[in-house]
Amino acid sequence: MKIVVDAQRLKSELTTLASFTHVEQTGKEGETAVTRIVFTEDDLAARAWLRGLHEETGLAVREDAVGNVFARWLGSAPELPAVGTGSHTDAIPHAGMYDGTVGVLGGLEAIRSLQRSGVRPKRSIELLMFTSEEPTRFGIGCLGSRLLSGVLDASLADQLKDAEGMALAEVRTAAGFAGTLDEVLLPTGYYSGWAELHIEQGPLLERDGVQIGVVTDIAAPASYRITIEGFGGHAGALLMPDRRDALCAAAEIILAVEKFALATGVIDTVATVGTLKVHPGAVNSVPSRVELALDVRDTDPERRESVMRGVRAVCEELRERRGVSIAEQLINADPPAQSDERIVAAIESACVDHGYSYRRMVSRAYHDSLFMACVAPVAMIFIPCRGGVSHRPDEFASLDAMTAGVTVLAETLLHLSAM
Amino acid sequence: MKIVVDAQRLKSELTTLASFTHVEQTGKEGETAVTRIVFTEDDLAARAWLRGLHEETGLAVREDAVGNVFARWLGSAPELPAVGTGSHTDAIPHAGMYDGTVGVLGGLEAIRSLQRSGVRPKRSIELLMFTSEEPTRFGIGCLGSRLLSGVLDASLADQLKDAEGMALAEVRTAAGFAGTLDEVLLPTGYYSGWAELHIEQGPLLERDGVQIGVVTDIAAPASYRITIEGFGGHAGALLMPDRRDALCAAAEIILAVEKFALATGVIDTVATVGTLKVHPGAVNSVPSRVELALDVRDTDPERRESVMRGVRAVCEELRERRGVSIAEQLINADPPAQSDERIVAAIESACVDHGYSYRRMVSRAYHDSLFMACVAPVAMIFIPCRGGVSHRPDEFASLDAMTAGVTVLAETLLHLSAM
Repeated sequence: MKIVVDAQRLKSELTTLASFTHVEQTGKEGETAVTRIVFTEDDLAARAWLRGLHEETGLAVREDAVGNVFARWLGSAPELPAVGTGSHTDAIPHAGMYDGTVGVLGGLEAIRSLQRSGVRPKRSIELLMFTSEEPTRFGIGCLGSRLLSGVLDASLADQLKDAEGMALAEVRTAAGFAGTLDEVLLPTGYYSGWAELHIEQGPLLERDGVQIGVVTDIAAPASYRITIEGFGGHAGALLMPDRRDALCAAAEIILAVEKFALATGVIDTVATVGTLKVHPGAVNSVPSRVELALDVRDTDPERRESVMRGVRAVCEELRERRGVSIAEQLINADPPAQSDERIVAAIESACVDHGYSYRRMVSRAYHDSLFMACVAPVAMIFIPCRGGVSHRPDEFASLDAMTAGVTVLAETLLHLSAM
Repeated sequence: MKIVVDAQRLKSELTTLASFTHVEQTGKEGETAVTRIVFTEDDLAARAWLRGLHEETGLAVREDAVGNVFARWLGSAPELPAVGTGSHTDAIPHAGMYDGTVGVLGGLEAIRSLQRSGVRPKRSIELLMFTSEEPTRFGIGCLGSRLLSGVLDASLADQLKDAEGMALAEVRTAAGFAGTLDEVLLPTGYYSGWAELHIEQGPLLERDGVQIGVVTDIAAPASYRITIEGFGGHAGALLMPDRRDALCAAAEIILAVEKFALATGVIDTVATVGTLKVHPGAVNSVPSRVELALDVRDTDPERRESVMRGVRAVCEELRERRGVSIAEQLINADPPAQSDERIVAAIESACVDHGYSYRRMVSRAYHDSLFMACVAPVAMIFIPCRGGVSHRPDEFASLDAMTAGVTVLAETLLHLSAM
């Protein structure tokens, strides 16, 4: 079918969305640093603006108790389970303007392009914006999709606290999302199929000149908080042999994480220490406590666990040698997801019909689709992003890449809606 | 001479001073965490309270343009250069209540004890409270004493910025300290002698049951800011072989600092990484930039430099191997100071007269006296603190220790005032 995507309009909407941010311009021309943390003023303003777009497009909007936003284009058989698509609009500190947002505004443009082509879907097509895919505020990613899929217990979720000690229950209520989180769980068979459009966040498609990535597996992420307690004191007076420096111990852990991730010898293993806090944090004080967060991912949960075994052995040795205590807290450890072969085939067929090159691939970043896979048949559509860069202000996807992605998404949604 | 110290009153005043703080109680009974950053509301409130104490004691108070506070007890020969004593009252985040404060409130109690004994000094005795001995706000320690001694250029000082980008010029003016910093420099021969009372901030006196430490040398401190620029990206998607992780490079630098400090084989060498900031600082982002602060001290500046040479060699190797850029910025590198033998002798004589055990020692922590040594003959009086602990909420000096310190200080000041 002929699908005409208005990529300029999509780009313009992405740029507007990027303006709902707490962070200054980076100073580089054409580059915007985006920070949009769930339930901040910026997030709420972005949501209000997005709702306006949905309404202009004639979609019926509803929100659940955790702030997931559903925008439904009614099909000719509205009693059938709908076809779903969507992604997230929250952004980690100092991030870019394409991660997640391309799946939300691109999903909207896919619906508009179908509307313009004059078709009406059989099953309804529903566009979802998930709450807090990023773990920034509550320490756990995919809050919305975890609750939709029942992976996260509703009562536990409400007790999650942000850095200021505010509980999710309190924060979401203040943001206008009342009701109990139990109600967020999707009924069985709510979606007949699900497809999420996303930038690759990796270098493979660009490097090999492939236009569409068809995701067959989503790697299993796990994250941990590690707290090291040593012994503080004055940096001048506490002698070297008497020290139990928490930051020196942390440094050894950071290098162990890297070492054991490389040691699997498999490209699918990645491990990162992304945050680290030093207490008391003065130039003339020996660090008494360090908290760090560790993220490990693999398509194979057992291989992922092998990294943690290596890190734990180093921690054990550090306790003895450095006289520090080290506590490990699991934040989340999720299973990998596999795509539905029927949806993968629909995406590939759309690529063929529209003459786009494509390749099957693994997603090493995790996505809301990882959790949607627990309650629906899923697949993902990746488009290349410049240099594979993501979670940075210079994240970029071209108009051509977005046109291809939205076209393939539209075709796939239409195909699934007829099945 | 008979000197009666009211240690209970001193302790009570230290406790009151500790209440001017921005940080909550630690939760442990009898333990107060103190944070008092220069020119914050807490600092200004503490200064106002202290001024009241000075006035009650009949001291003539003046303040200079950077907020150093001078409280003078007029001697019988007020035209002669005065004898000075004093210390600081600012406190790093989550610190204790004795560091510096014992030299200010203990200095005041020394003056009161002399007043009670009925003597009048020949030279005036002046109690000084230095502005910002701690480097917390402006990144450089001993702001007040550096300016008093001309070690820090007045126009450069006014341009120092805090973490919010506020310049010292702006901050001090807002705090009510106007005038130009040029006027802070002390005239030649302003003090005929100087003695500072301080807790040891190390374990030696307590361990060996010695009541008074007579400081003969103050170790030379140097501090550096090191910024590591790597390459950020999504923690799931950026593959291990493609990474230029700024935090992994920082971890190697932290361990190199420790290694080269130990490598001198001399107990006087200490080196510490006390602060570290990770950018962007999200659990699912590869660190693109890390800033850390490094503090190196030694009684021998050449040995201190040998630590930095080792660290720089590691940085050079890291640039190559990890593909990161590493920038080093000198914050300060000060020469060591030696005490004046005449003042050391006066302190030892006071110990003998009052039956206190004493020992000559090196100060590895730096103090305002390090800079006062540039403009006056100086020495320091150390008293033991529990476990050698400092810069922590559980910092503690006993009433007996403070009684000994204040007695020896009073006797020393009286002795110097007659010379």
